[in-house]
Amino acid sequence: MTVFDRLFADSTLSQLQEKDARDPLAHKRAEFKLPEGVVYLDGNSLGALPLTVPARLARVAEEEWGGQLIRSWTANAEAAQDWMNLPDRVAAKIAPLIGAQPHEVAVGDSTSVNIFKLLAAALHMAPPERRVILTDADNFPTDLYMAQGLNALLGEKYELRPVPSAELEANLTGDVALTLLTEVDYRTGHRLDMAGLTAKAHRHGILTVWDLAHSAGAFPVDLNGVGADFAVGCGYKFLNGGPGAPSFLFVAGRHQDSARAFLSGWMGHADPFEMARDFTPAPGARRYVVGTPTVLSLSALDAALDVFADVDMNVLRAKSLSLTDTFIDLMEPLTAQYPLTLVTPRNHDERGSQVSYRHPQAREVMQKLIESGILGDYRTPDILRFGFTPLYHSHADVWRAVQGIKRVLENEVLEEGERT
Amino acid sequence: MTVFDRLFADSTLSQLQEKDARDPLAHKRAEFKLPEGVVYLDGNSLGALPLTVPARLARVAEEEWGGQLIRSWTANAEAAQDWMNLPDRVAAKIAPLIGAQPHEVAVGDSTSVNIFKLLAAALHMAPPERRVILTDADNFPTDLYMAQGLNALLGEKYELRPVPSAELEANLTGDVALTLLTEVDYRTGHRLDMAGLTAKAHRHGILTVWDLAHSAGAFPVDLNGVGADFAVGCGYKFLNGGPGAPSFLFVAGRHQDSARAFLSGWMGHADPFEMARDFTPAPGARRYVVGTPTVLSLSALDAALDVFADVDMNVLRAKSLSLTDTFIDLMEPLTAQYPLTLVTPRNHDERGSQVSYRHPQAREVMQKLIESGILGDYRTPDILRFGFTPLYHSHADVWRAVQGIKRVLENEVLEEGERT
Repeated sequence: MTVFDRLFADSTLSQLQEKDARDPLAHKRAEFKLPEGVVYLDGNSLGALPLTVPARLARVAEEEWGGQLIRSWTANAEAAQDWMNLPDRVAAKIAPLIGAQPHEVAVGDSTSVNIFKLLAAALHMAPPERRVILTDADNFPTDLYMAQGLNALLGEKYELRPVPSAELEANLTGDVALTLLTEVDYRTGHRLDMAGLTAKAHRHGILTVWDLAHSAGAFPVDLNGVGADFAVGCGYKFLNGGPGAPSFLFVAGRHQDSARAFLSGWMGHADPFEMARDFTPAPGARRYVVGTPTVLSLSALDAALDVFADVDMNVLRAKSLSLTDTFIDLMEPLTAQYPLTLVTPRNHDERGSQVSYRHPQAREVMQKLIESGILGDYRTPDILRFGFTPLYHSHADVWRAVQGIKRVLENEVLEEGERT
Repeated sequence: MTVFDRLFADSTLSQLQEKDARDPLAHKRAEFKLPEGVVYLDGNSLGALPLTVPARLARVAEEEWGGQLIRSWTANAEAAQDWMNLPDRVAAKIAPLIGAQPHEVAVGDSTSVNIFKLLAAALHMAPPERRVILTDADNFPTDLYMAQGLNALLGEKYELRPVPSAELEANLTGDVALTLLTEVDYRTGHRLDMAGLTAKAHRHGILTVWDLAHSAGAFPVDLNGVGADFAVGCGYKFLNGGPGAPSFLFVAGRHQDSARAFLSGWMGHADPFEMARDFTPAPGARRYVVGTPTVLSLSALDAALDVFADVDMNVLRAKSLSLTDTFIDLMEPLTAQYPLTLVTPRNHDERGSQVSYRHPQAREVMQKLIESGILGDYRTPDILRFGFTPLYHSHADVWRAVQGIKRVLENEVLEEGERT
């Protein structure tokens, strides 16, 4: 237990406020817009607005687009303001958050499209006799759908094998071409052992595609440290890049000569304005940038990432665990009183930055919570999901959230009593 | 010749100003930001900024994202302000500009990615013995690259057959699966006969994929009128949606049951929040929306499209032809004096909304033009390209542009004289 871990260890409101007073990340909250009267526990679905973003958007729209027009694609490159290299500059900001080198990261398109790119590249690299795509049966739907679509395009050559997460390790067998796994389960918040699974996959000759949707920006990720092959992640959750922000992908440096960018568009060409008839990939991961970058959305993400410039991700992780521990502890009495079941592991190593409960009326309970200003979300079939963002949450927020949940559950019970 | 056509027919400055005084679209210019001291002839690369866009971006960022947070995905659907249906609302605005029904259009991703989706769908529908993808050898590079990438992914099963545009018709043969053609050539401004080529392709059992990058918003397009099968287009050229704006695609209603969305993401699912394990396509073209929409960029495009609400596209086309005719006429003396060769057809039916010239020092000439405030663009190997946007150009702008070009060419010659 580090000094910082010990800073967070108790749980009455005044004690929580004392923790908040010593929180080394407390100053980050002022960098976000957080509406009055709301406890926002859904930053794992859409991160809150960093205050620098609106001014950046205004500048890009009015000056760069409106004033400089087409010249903005190449102008001011020396001041790092040209649009052509914007995807690379954003990639360079994301790289240290995920343990990657800048040339291993490309930014653009949606997470779904990036999953398609990486699955296509990885399947092409895998020995042709390996025909299984191993995935978590509870993986986020778009991961499954993109694999289904690619497999259909390839004539159903592969078998998509979804297994429960507890059985993943036992299924790392010689017929598996690759694994497609999301590190943190979007419903339960259960975190897989990325290092262990990657190592074991490699021992069996299996390539790994990791979805970092609920990892990047939520805690330190070390892709090169664990030897990951491919990864993809989301710009609008813990990276706070705005609704539908461009996604990122990672291709390990050692694979860049053999992995192929099948979605080969002009902005991934080594020299786009040569207007050559044949595709020659740009160096590094830039080749995975396909069409013209969505400059407005990408600029918002670029500005949002500056929030991380002075953040020690280990400190952020310690605070995240303290917040989620506090939440689990304060919720404990409610799980005895109401049909609430914690589904997020208590073990720190197995947890992301969210806490989830099952409840038989989860949809209705979340609706009431949202009406009362506690913004979490509901996930089918019966999950109440609460995301914690150490950049803008305090321990006092956690306390307020639990008081709000308690009130809603009490009222729910009353109404049920009235109905019977 | 219509009454409106007759309004535009002569070419001295005062006569041009008289035409401008009678221009039924003259009021549209006030809806755009156009910097002082610039004649902007590159709206075919990046359309100018519609003045409503910055306020819309500010509202989306500060209120919808910052204030309403995650609730904006579904809130205010009855007021057509929810983000979930934003792609469909934008599709419904584009549909009448291209002669399509709203359910035949999907908006999102880049033009490149949309080309991939449509090529994959069309190849899957074509009889398996047809192995040729017929394209224009001078097609825009990303069209060629995306076809190359898809073909590589499919094991080089197909032959990409690029032929000169004059030989396209003769190459519509029984081995061709589909044509991938851009209606207006990005370099020469030459417009293909979409109706004739589509009809002949169909007589030979060939599917058509049309790229409308330089068509949509530039003149009336009638996809259903010509019986087009598939089409794709660009949001940031004549639709003025901003740098890297989302692209659109079209799948004819008659193909929607047989065409498959291989890039099947959660936002194209019939019920995304059901979080089902298997992909069930949404009705109509919505299934081609893949990942989470880029709300900021998409909102800019949405606001930009409102510029077209009161525009008669036939009037816009008449003005476009008048502008390009005027430009060609005024440039005529310069082509006699300097090594300038008109490469855009004089025939109205074979022209888009741009005019291009070859010049042996095209790159240097365009650099000087841009420095002097005449913003066209250079395209390899020797093309000077000038785009005309009837929404914000006057005939007097054309006159000013030609005066500027004349001055640059005169100075160029002087400098060459000095060098020898």
